[in-house]
Amino acid sequence: MRICRFKTNDDQESYGVLTNENIIYKIEGDIFGEFQQTANTFDLKNVKLLPPCFPKQMYGPGLNFLDHLQMANEALGTNATTIEQPDPWFKSITSIIGEGENVIIPKDSPSGIQYEGECIAIIGKPTRRVDEDTAWGNILGYTCGNDISERTWQRDDREFWRAKGSDTFAPIGPWIETSFDPREQNAMIVRVNGQEVQKAYTSDMFFNFGKLISFISQAITLSPGDMIWSGTSGHPENMSHGDIVEVEVENIGILTNKVVNE
Amino acid sequence: MRICRFKTNDDQESYGVLTNENIIYKIEGDIFGEFQQTANTFDLKNVKLLPPCFPKQMYGPGLNFLDHLQMANEALGTNATTIEQPDPWFKSITSIIGEGENVIIPKDSPSGIQYEGECIAIIGKPTRRVDEDTAWGNILGYTCGNDISERTWQRDDREFWRAKGSDTFAPIGPWIETSFDPREQNAMIVRVNGQEVQKAYTSDMFFNFGKLISFISQAITLSPGDMIWSGTSGHPENMSHGDIVEVEVENIGILTNKVVNE
Repeated sequence: MRICRFKTNDDQESYGVLTNENIIYKIEGDIFGEFQQTANTFDLKNVKLLPPCFPKQMYGPGLNFLDHLQMANEALGTNATTIEQPDPWFKSITSIIGEGENVIIPKDSPSGIQYEGECIAIIGKPTRRVDEDTAWGNILGYTCGNDISERTWQRDDREFWRAKGSDTFAPIGPWIETSFDPREQNAMIVRVNGQEVQKAYTSDMFFNFGKLISFISQAITLSPGDMIWSGTSGHPENMSHGDIVEVEVENIGILTNKVVNE
Repeated sequence: MRICRFKTNDDQESYGVLTNENIIYKIEGDIFGEFQQTANTFDLKNVKLLPPCFPKQMYGPGLNFLDHLQMANEALGTNATTIEQPDPWFKSITSIIGEGENVIIPKDSPSGIQYEGECIAIIGKPTRRVDEDTAWGNILGYTCGNDISERTWQRDDREFWRAKGSDTFAPIGPWIETSFDPREQNAMIVRVNGQEVQKAYTSDMFFNFGKLISFISQAITLSPGDMIWSGTSGHPENMSHGDIVEVEVENIGILTNKVVNE
């Protein structure tokens, strides 16, 4: 099932269930609890999709794909071949934008901004000190995310607060797919202006979402709506004013945003 | 004016204005917008104080006092004498607890937990790319905070997500003081079981709140309720099961919590 959040022409915001025929059935109730589809329908092309829910917090895993670890080795002069445990970092919720919104290159960015195409797990239940099996059961569904990154800030700052948390640095969407298994080989693809620039598979995460959520929940209570990012792969590159960037996660959908200078 | 959030015996949560005679006048409206005191009063000793508001995010400044920089020099083998710019880090909002609640030592804490007595500025207005003068005008008021810290996690993890963000690691309160100027010499004192263990002055921050908020707002939109911590001073020490820890900021109030083992 695809759950989306959307705005209609009269500025009403709602949740809905999206069919394969691109019809949205408006939802009443709580997507994390009890809800019902109503008979109230909208055509997908007549609404504006919004970020699919409101997290209290979002975490990335640190390095979570072998070829991104190799990139880090080159940048840091290290020679790591594996990762012993997740090393989470925080991504500001104020950086979230939705499908079709603009990613803004900050005017004071020292080195420009890069895409990182990722899969995001969305927590469905209060989650604290759970094991891996329980963690899988606490996930509502999955969406696509673009972990926009500024590498000079990432290298020089203590934390990634602005390197990955600046306003508009978290495009998320287009919807939540509840029938998705990231342990299967789903491609995560980034395209810039239609050209494929990044490809990895959700099945290749060092630490899968069950492990990540179990690990984070040992210290922190996660809440419905909280988002855990997969990590990215490869060697991302800079984007320029006017670029159209797409993140596709196979069996979820495509998230599309335009890049503009501040 | 002191603004507090409190719960009455019938589990109603409200905001109120606290008088010097410890009477709370219930507020109607929005503490960040328009509000009125009502004639509905409560005795402070008959209510439970709650964390004074709901932030979307909280940031610490990194090292912000000379003697804490010296402690970091000793730990890191460095020899810094000043700090060129703020180096913010994120503190999870799920770590917030209120006046009188227990701080929990995690059962898997490698080295135990330490107090850090701090002053907190509470953002009153949407704040993005403001200068220092505007930043001061965007602060609603100030409260006390205890930036509970686990030093092994702080040293070994990429970010402070669990070192400073584990559940219960952010006691905040007891109320918001709107008539307070941190540029004046207000003592920030920590007492453990009645004994003074830490003392600094808000006027000695390397980067005052105006500078911190201006700096952070260059990248991130801050919202009403968001909290900026002052940083701490000196050489904090471990606390033990049963300890009573107080953070007093002169001209604001005293925040008291008990420390317990998980």
